[in-house]
Amino acid sequence: MNSSQIFEKIRSKKSFLCVGLDSEITRIPKHLFAEDDPVFAFNKAIIDATAAFTVAYKPNTAFYEANGSKGWRSLESTISYIRINYPEMFIIADAKRGDIGNTSDNYASAFFKHLDADAVTVAPYMGLDSVHPFLGYPDKWVVLLVLTSNSGSADFQHLTDASGSPLFEIVLKKAASWATPDQMMFVAGATHPDAILRIRALVPDYFLLVPGVGAQGGDLETVAKNGLNSQGGLLINASRSIIYASSGTDFDAAAANEAKKMQQMMEKALLHKGLI
Amino acid sequence: MNSSQIFEKIRSKKSFLCVGLDSEITRIPKHLFAEDDPVFAFNKAIIDATAAFTVAYKPNTAFYEANGSKGWRSLESTISYIRINYPEMFIIADAKRGDIGNTSDNYASAFFKHLDADAVTVAPYMGLDSVHPFLGYPDKWVVLLVLTSNSGSADFQHLTDASGSPLFEIVLKKAASWATPDQMMFVAGATHPDAILRIRALVPDYFLLVPGVGAQGGDLETVAKNGLNSQGGLLINASRSIIYASSGTDFDAAAANEAKKMQQMMEKALLHKGLI
Repeated sequence: MNSSQIFEKIRSKKSFLCVGLDSEITRIPKHLFAEDDPVFAFNKAIIDATAAFTVAYKPNTAFYEANGSKGWRSLESTISYIRINYPEMFIIADAKRGDIGNTSDNYASAFFKHLDADAVTVAPYMGLDSVHPFLGYPDKWVVLLVLTSNSGSADFQHLTDASGSPLFEIVLKKAASWATPDQMMFVAGATHPDAILRIRALVPDYFLLVPGVGAQGGDLETVAKNGLNSQGGLLINASRSIIYASSGTDFDAAAANEAKKMQQMMEKALLHKGLI
Repeated sequence: MNSSQIFEKIRSKKSFLCVGLDSEITRIPKHLFAEDDPVFAFNKAIIDATAAFTVAYKPNTAFYEANGSKGWRSLESTISYIRINYPEMFIIADAKRGDIGNTSDNYASAFFKHLDADAVTVAPYMGLDSVHPFLGYPDKWVVLLVLTSNSGSADFQHLTDASGSPLFEIVLKKAASWATPDQMMFVAGATHPDAILRIRALVPDYFLLVPGVGAQGGDLETVAKNGLNSQGGLLINASRSIIYASSGTDFDAAAANEAKKMQQMMEKALLHKGLI
C-alpha cells in the first residue's frame, strides 16, 4: 500500500482513525473467557464493530507478549482476521523494535513476512543500519518514533544540540533522508500539538501517526488542524478510549460508538481542509 | 540475583562470558531438522556444550519472532531449559523494548513473569516512564542501551549538546540516577574501546554488557582492560562466533572450543586485575 492508496481510503471512509488493539487479558470482559482464545475473541468483536469508522488497526505487541507464545498466537490470529475480512485496512504492528543490522533483518521478517503487517514501529536510537532492513520490503512501511506522547519524551527527545535543534528534529530530518514518503511515517504524540505543527513543516509530504488522543489527553481537532496535509498525511490512533469504552457485554457497541464519534470529528476536519 | 552474586559466579567460573543465542532457523545445522523444535534442539546442545565456560546466556528475541508464535515457544523452552538445568546462569532477554508506561508494564510482565528472564535489554529513547516498569521487580535487571556496537551508533548516540556531551553520556548519567547498580546495567559496544573507558569512569559501580566481540570485530583484551572494575562489572557477549563456529554435526564441540578460548582469555584478564 502506498501513500496515495492510504489517502484514497481516508477519503472513502471519511476517517483517518487508527484503532489501537492494546488488548490486555486482565481488562477484557469476563464473558469472553468462555472462548478458546479470549484476546482474539475480544479483538474480533472490536474489529467488526469499528471497521466502518477506521482505516487502520495497530496491535501493540507488548499486550500479546505478556501471554508469551499463546499471546503471539492471538496476534497472528488477529492480523490474519483483519487481512481476510477487511483487506482494505492498513495494519501497523506497534513493536518499537530496532537492533543491529542482521538482527533487524529478523525483526523485519517477523513483522512483514510472518505476520504480514503493512507497517512496523521502529525506535531510532541505534541509527540507520537498525532501520534499513525494514525498508527493503515493497509496499511495507517503517513508522519511526520521533516525538512520543509520554512524559518520558522530555528526557531525551527534547535535548538540544549546539545549534539549538532538539533531538527529535534531528532524528526526523536524518530519517527523512533515508526513506521516501511511501516507505516511512513518523510518530508524533498528540500531547505535543505545537511540535506537530513544526514536524508538519519539516516533513510536509510524510504521513504522521499520532497517538495520545483519548486516554492520554491529546486533542483531536488541534492535531487535525496542525497535522493534515493536502494528501491527508495523518493517522490518529486511539486505543483504550475505544476498546475499553465498556467492560460489559456491550463492549463492542460502546467501542463502535466511540470510534464513530472520532470518525465524525475527522470527517469535519477533512471537509474543513477541503480534502473530501 | 544481585551484582555481588554475579561477581561470585564470575570468580568461580573464571569467566565473564555471555553467550548470545541468536539462533536463526536458516543457519542451524541440517541434521537438527529431524527434531520437533530444531531451534530449541540447537540451543540445548549449545547450552550443554558452553555452560562450563559462561556465566550468562542472551537469547535475542528477533531470531525467535521471525518464526512467530512457534519461535516464541522455542524461546520459552530455551529459557526454561537453562533455568532447570543451569540455575546459576544469568539470563538476559535481548529484546530492546521500551514503550509508554502502561505498555512497558506489559513488556516487563512478558520478560520477567512469563519468561522468567533475569534481565531485559531496554531502549532509552522514550525516557523514564518507558524504563520504570522494568525496575519494579526484585532481583530483575534492566540492561539499557547506551552506546551500541553497530555502525548506526554514530547517527544519534554521538550527537553532542551545547556543552559538548554526547547523547550516550547524557543517557548514561540520567539513567544511572534512575536505578542502582543492582538494578541496571549498560550496553557499551566493544567496537568503541575508548568510550568504554569513559563509561567505566562515569559509572564506576555499574555492570556493563559489552557486545561486538567476535563477528563484529571488537577486541576482548582491550574491553577487559577498560571495562573491568573491582567487582567484575563486566559481561562480554559473543554470539555468532560461538554458536556458528561449525555448521556440521560437530557444531556443539566447536562452540565449546570457541567459548573455552574466550574463557581462558577472561581468566587471564581476571588474574591480571587481581580479581581471582
